[in-house]
Amino acid sequence: MISGVPVSAPLVLSIDAMGGDRGPAAVLDGIALARRKYPDLHFLVHGPEAELAPLVKARRLKSCVTIRHATGVVTMHDKPAAVMRGGKDTSMWSTIDAVRDGAAQVAVSCGNTGALMAVSMLRLRKMPGVNRPAIAAFWPCKNPSGFNIMLDMGADVKAEARDLLTYALMGSSYARNALGLDRPRVGLLNVGTEEHKGHAELKIAAEMIGAMETAGGYEFVGFVEGNDLPGSRVDVIVTDGFTGNVALKTGEGTAKFAGELMREAFTSSLLSKLGALLASGALKRLKAKIDPRRVNGGVFLGLNGTVIKSHGGADATGVAAAIDLAARLAGLGFAERLAARVALASANGQDAASAEAGIENAK
Amino acid sequence: MISGVPVSAPLVLSIDAMGGDRGPAAVLDGIALARRKYPDLHFLVHGPEAELAPLVKARRLKSCVTIRHATGVVTMHDKPAAVMRGGKDTSMWSTIDAVRDGAAQVAVSCGNTGALMAVSMLRLRKMPGVNRPAIAAFWPCKNPSGFNIMLDMGADVKAEARDLLTYALMGSSYARNALGLDRPRVGLLNVGTEEHKGHAELKIAAEMIGAMETAGGYEFVGFVEGNDLPGSRVDVIVTDGFTGNVALKTGEGTAKFAGELMREAFTSSLLSKLGALLASGALKRLKAKIDPRRVNGGVFLGLNGTVIKSHGGADATGVAAAIDLAARLAGLGFAERLAARVALASANGQDAASAEAGIENAK
Repeated sequence: MISGVPVSAPLVLSIDAMGGDRGPAAVLDGIALARRKYPDLHFLVHGPEAELAPLVKARRLKSCVTIRHATGVVTMHDKPAAVMRGGKDTSMWSTIDAVRDGAAQVAVSCGNTGALMAVSMLRLRKMPGVNRPAIAAFWPCKNPSGFNIMLDMGADVKAEARDLLTYALMGSSYARNALGLDRPRVGLLNVGTEEHKGHAELKIAAEMIGAMETAGGYEFVGFVEGNDLPGSRVDVIVTDGFTGNVALKTGEGTAKFAGELMREAFTSSLLSKLGALLASGALKRLKAKIDPRRVNGGVFLGLNGTVIKSHGGADATGVAAAIDLAARLAGLGFAERLAARVALASANGQDAASAEAGIENAK
Repeated sequence: MISGVPVSAPLVLSIDAMGGDRGPAAVLDGIALARRKYPDLHFLVHGPEAELAPLVKARRLKSCVTIRHATGVVTMHDKPAAVMRGGKDTSMWSTIDAVRDGAAQVAVSCGNTGALMAVSMLRLRKMPGVNRPAIAAFWPCKNPSGFNIMLDMGADVKAEARDLLTYALMGSSYARNALGLDRPRVGLLNVGTEEHKGHAELKIAAEMIGAMETAGGYEFVGFVEGNDLPGSRVDVIVTDGFTGNVALKTGEGTAKFAGELMREAFTSSLLSKLGALLASGALKRLKAKIDPRRVNGGVFLGLNGTVIKSHGGADATGVAAAIDLAARLAGLGFAERLAARVALASANGQDAASAEAGIENAK
């Protein structure tokens, strides 16, 4: 999705082979795909050795894959608390621990979101200065890159004003690194753009985010509304995990519904079928442009380590996109940049700007 | 949108001619359109007499329109509190007062939503048993009618558990009357369908809504998610006004964005243009099917009187749709049915079911 970011070797990614809807074969297909773009990447792949070894061999991935044996699998129905208590033998746990131990820079899993966040919190711990970690995701919109970033997508159903400020800092750092923007525009999601609208908490958050503009290295555009999500007004949309999750699913559901209605229209008559046939090239290009697999990967921000949550139903293309994102973030040293940004911004504010700029522009 | 509901005469609607983006001419064009379907309807039209009289005359509406002179106009930028203090001379105030005084059964305005809700609250007062009134709107989806109903769309940014229960009662009464459903399926919007997810308040609300199923005359399907909004699982979606407003605008924005991408695709090459031409009949039918003007009208629920908020940018077709809805609700005696439902349900619960059924099925 983002082109030309140089990745420095040796980079190691920690990949959970289990827990996705399509099983370990799809994950290893994704690794094989991603390897074409990143030939120097190494993968720690977690799951039952007996199941994974033949899959690795069949794809000739032995030179770039190390299997980390783990017998247990976290299913989509497992409760996060149960996994935290008894999930030590799972591939998910092992995947996160490789980042914790410094064996890999970034972790990727297609598994159960709640469990993945719980295990990540438990094993990686929250970054200093962060009260509530967040899940950030790309949102298709009219920006030149085709995307903006929204957070929190559902790590926590609640967020106080200071959490929203942290989301602004983390989201803009992520936008700088993942979207290559110098000074991302940050907006706070509300029910109107006027100052008198919305919860009291949002007004306080707006003041706090506005005051941290320089130290945070972003431009604060104020309140934005739901219809700004697919627009071009902002690069980072800040909201609590409840609202973000509802908006994400509403947007996905609406887009899917629109696509179904369109398909119905094109198959409704012989003439429309012929029309669809003639326009098929353009429709295919459109489909490729908005293919959700291309932007597969919610990122957990605010932990001591980067974790990417791939869609549970991801196929090889989707897994490869998540690995692509992981490789770019690992290559940029994103975890360290993010930690520096949050630490310096929360430490004092304005004075931090120059010091942090040094760190983030060092590469 | 809904066919064949008999409307008993004499019905009088109170129409705010001012405050919409397209001015009073569009409103009177809408009245002229609606009159074809409802020849016996009478309209109290509020605004400056000198401006309205020629418009009424030009459309030959003198026999069905009575002008109620009001000099002031509430603009889209007026703050609700200011209108509550100094808005007595406005067409909006006059429009609501006609319902308050019993001169009309339902009020319709294209004006400023916040001001309209504030004036409606002040003049009509909350219905007994209602703590927070709500705005309900139709949402395009896969249900047989093509729509479900979502509330609150932004009357209040907050809602406690008992407010959400009231929304379930009001929303299902509205679905019975506006969508002609016997026993609407009610869902509570959350970030997951599992019981352990979401705010504590939502779990309490779910229990309360579940316990009132029989008295409320609805079926409670439990938690629903953002992607259920365009689906076919529910008829009534209950949420707080903050979440509802964000979801509404996200859905609208996404649908618009999808339409723009589609238009781009169809004009990208000569072949695709030809394809669009061949499919134009099917595309036009699709456009008509999802035309937002057809479902123009958010309804304020929980006041002593029915108020319909038409879209600010509504043209004649949009205004006519809002009037159509108003005429149907007036003809059904919706305000009384809703009040009876809320009063009986909040009074005791199970015992109320039979008594209320008598009232609602009396017509």
